[in-house]
Amino acid sequence: MRRQNLALVLQEVAARAPLSRAEVAAASGLTRAAVSSLVEELIGGGLLAELGPAPSGRVGRPGNALTLNPEGPAGLGAEIGVEHLAACVVDLAGEPRAWQRIAADNRGRPASEVLADLAALLGRVTAEAGPQLRPAGLGIAVPGLVGAEHGLVIRAANLGWSEVPVIAMLRSELRRAGLPDLAGLPAEVDNEANLGGLAELWLGEHAGTGDFVHISAEAGIGAALIVAGRLFRGARGFAGELGHVPVEPSGPACACGSRGCLEQYAGERAVLAAAGTHGTGRDWVTLLAERAAAGDPAVLAALDRAGTALGTAVAGAVNLIDPAAVILGGGYAELGDWLVPGMRRELSARVTVRPWSDDWLAVSSLGRRGPLLGAAAGVVRAIVEDPGRVAVQ
Amino acid sequence: MRRQNLALVLQEVAARAPLSRAEVAAASGLTRAAVSSLVEELIGGGLLAELGPAPSGRVGRPGNALTLNPEGPAGLGAEIGVEHLAACVVDLAGEPRAWQRIAADNRGRPASEVLADLAALLGRVTAEAGPQLRPAGLGIAVPGLVGAEHGLVIRAANLGWSEVPVIAMLRSELRRAGLPDLAGLPAEVDNEANLGGLAELWLGEHAGTGDFVHISAEAGIGAALIVAGRLFRGARGFAGELGHVPVEPSGPACACGSRGCLEQYAGERAVLAAAGTHGTGRDWVTLLAERAAAGDPAVLAALDRAGTALGTAVAGAVNLIDPAAVILGGGYAELGDWLVPGMRRELSARVTVRPWSDDWLAVSSLGRRGPLLGAAAGVVRAIVEDPGRVAVQ
Repeated sequence: MRRQNLALVLQEVAARAPLSRAEVAAASGLTRAAVSSLVEELIGGGLLAELGPAPSGRVGRPGNALTLNPEGPAGLGAEIGVEHLAACVVDLAGEPRAWQRIAADNRGRPASEVLADLAALLGRVTAEAGPQLRPAGLGIAVPGLVGAEHGLVIRAANLGWSEVPVIAMLRSELRRAGLPDLAGLPAEVDNEANLGGLAELWLGEHAGTGDFVHISAEAGIGAALIVAGRLFRGARGFAGELGHVPVEPSGPACACGSRGCLEQYAGERAVLAAAGTHGTGRDWVTLLAERAAAGDPAVLAALDRAGTALGTAVAGAVNLIDPAAVILGGGYAELGDWLVPGMRRELSARVTVRPWSDDWLAVSSLGRRGPLLGAAAGVVRAIVEDPGRVAVQ
Repeated sequence: MRRQNLALVLQEVAARAPLSRAEVAAASGLTRAAVSSLVEELIGGGLLAELGPAPSGRVGRPGNALTLNPEGPAGLGAEIGVEHLAACVVDLAGEPRAWQRIAADNRGRPASEVLADLAALLGRVTAEAGPQLRPAGLGIAVPGLVGAEHGLVIRAANLGWSEVPVIAMLRSELRRAGLPDLAGLPAEVDNEANLGGLAELWLGEHAGTGDFVHISAEAGIGAALIVAGRLFRGARGFAGELGHVPVEPSGPACACGSRGCLEQYAGERAVLAAAGTHGTGRDWVTLLAERAAAGDPAVLAALDRAGTALGTAVAGAVNLIDPAAVILGGGYAELGDWLVPGMRRELSARVTVRPWSDDWLAVSSLGRRGPLLGAAAGVVRAIVEDPGRVAVQ
């Protein structure tokens, strides 16, 4: 019961800080005495901090405003991309406090080499964050399917990975790099599209709506289905493979063995090919955004085709699972100006037997930072949901 | 606590009857004394019955075998079809004990006339069931969208209904028909595809698997998404509109205003047209099944085309929501021999980035009885889930 009340108080402050003890009591329905005792425990555990006197409309002594401790337990995030590695530290509020990113051609590279570089990067990002921000856990975003078995990447086609025990291998590299504290952290690995959707749920502008489909394109096209404020993973953990939803049954052959998959219209290679450009070595999203902004007709046509195909596939998803909103995230967010018109056109033409409004398709402000933020934020979300794991004495 | 234990005991018996009190105690973790007391209350409330001595491998006095009371509270179901009306009574175990069905051309008919006929049918089916089976509630299956607002059918295009307060109107017709007891029952209305999926979950051969997509075709093509043992309704209650998932973006125009929807390939009219037959006045499913069994090449080609389109749309759904199984139900179940091959072909070609097995597509044994069974069974399921509402003294 006390453990639940600790969570209640912490979540009130997390949602609406700064708050006085009196405001927490009013919002939570707990007595002021109970709130004071719980707050002392949360301050003692390093989860809450006092900002000083809060403005109060009431007569009497104003309370000190409470906030999540900006120097409390932190979340450490890692991201393995096909062409980059990244790491970050977020504070209890999910705010990024240190961020490191390096370019790296990880295609076909041995997993141990990739993870050795990632271990070094994790060392640098925690040094940048400083000693006040102590990671309580590690989240890892990967561009592939993650198994129910703990820490196993079943397949990451673009990396050439299959059955890689990412967490165990990363712990070993962290130890080798002289980072035993990081090697000992609780760790979780998840698909980048899932983590991008969770970041949107926890930190994005659409955080309030707990039912949406978040669409992103990193190595492949992925969707995260957020249902009633939780990630929907499906019966076997493979939900959200939007990239292989058929758009035209007899369309172009796909690497997956099928034909006409969404990736053949809106995936990186397909859009670059339609735009008449191939692997210039530059980041594809930035390249396309620049050329589209400059009015390049081939790029504009390629992005309109991609937006139309995305709209067709998403219209099917909307008819099937009835989300309250669709959020365009990841790299697509930076291409939103050119993808959204085709998507809206298809959605309004194809979602007709139930209500649909153009406004229900929105662009994420987190964009490509989403998966890494989600990986790190998952750690602090778990603490805010159950502070007893850290604070109960 | 006692209320929860009543539910626990009743659910043990419901799942594995006949059971002795000792077996219930062993399975539930409750003491024999507690089980005896709870069983007495459930027998007193008319929910459990004794069958006589149960076989027992143990030394000592064999217990009397317990079963759900076959003369306990019952579920009353009603179904409004485009070309028929039906009603049934199921006992606590969900077994149908009385069943009435009449042909009726309900297209464009005033709702009050349809509901007057349905009221009379409900009178006949409860008379057939006899006085021992007393309905505890009424479930109504309709071929249309049902609103969150209680008892309102938002749209049933094939009936020509819009914003019809079905429950209120049916109560009024039941009173007019001299059936005040039925008019006073708690009542719920739901979409036929949803109720077909729930019937499969509760009563079908696939009852054990709590994650599947159930596909049916009555007035339109509908899917029920069963997730973790519950019906997934979506953010606004419109989930499962499989009929309007696009199969070919530039395919034939659909009545919904879009193009290339699944209904244009696998819906009643599309299949009859492709088979070269139109509205003979006979039941379309039976007609097609007879002609396909006789080897009619046009019918075989039409059903293969329908199965292929179903497979394409369902492959998208599988990639997106990752169900453990796909169940072909409703009228499609009777056409399974001719639809399943094309569906399996498409599923195995298009579900490639995650595991898929032919066996995960199965045909429902409930078929077209599903929606009405689901409507009636919902009443008794609610009692088994919380017997306190009936039995607590």
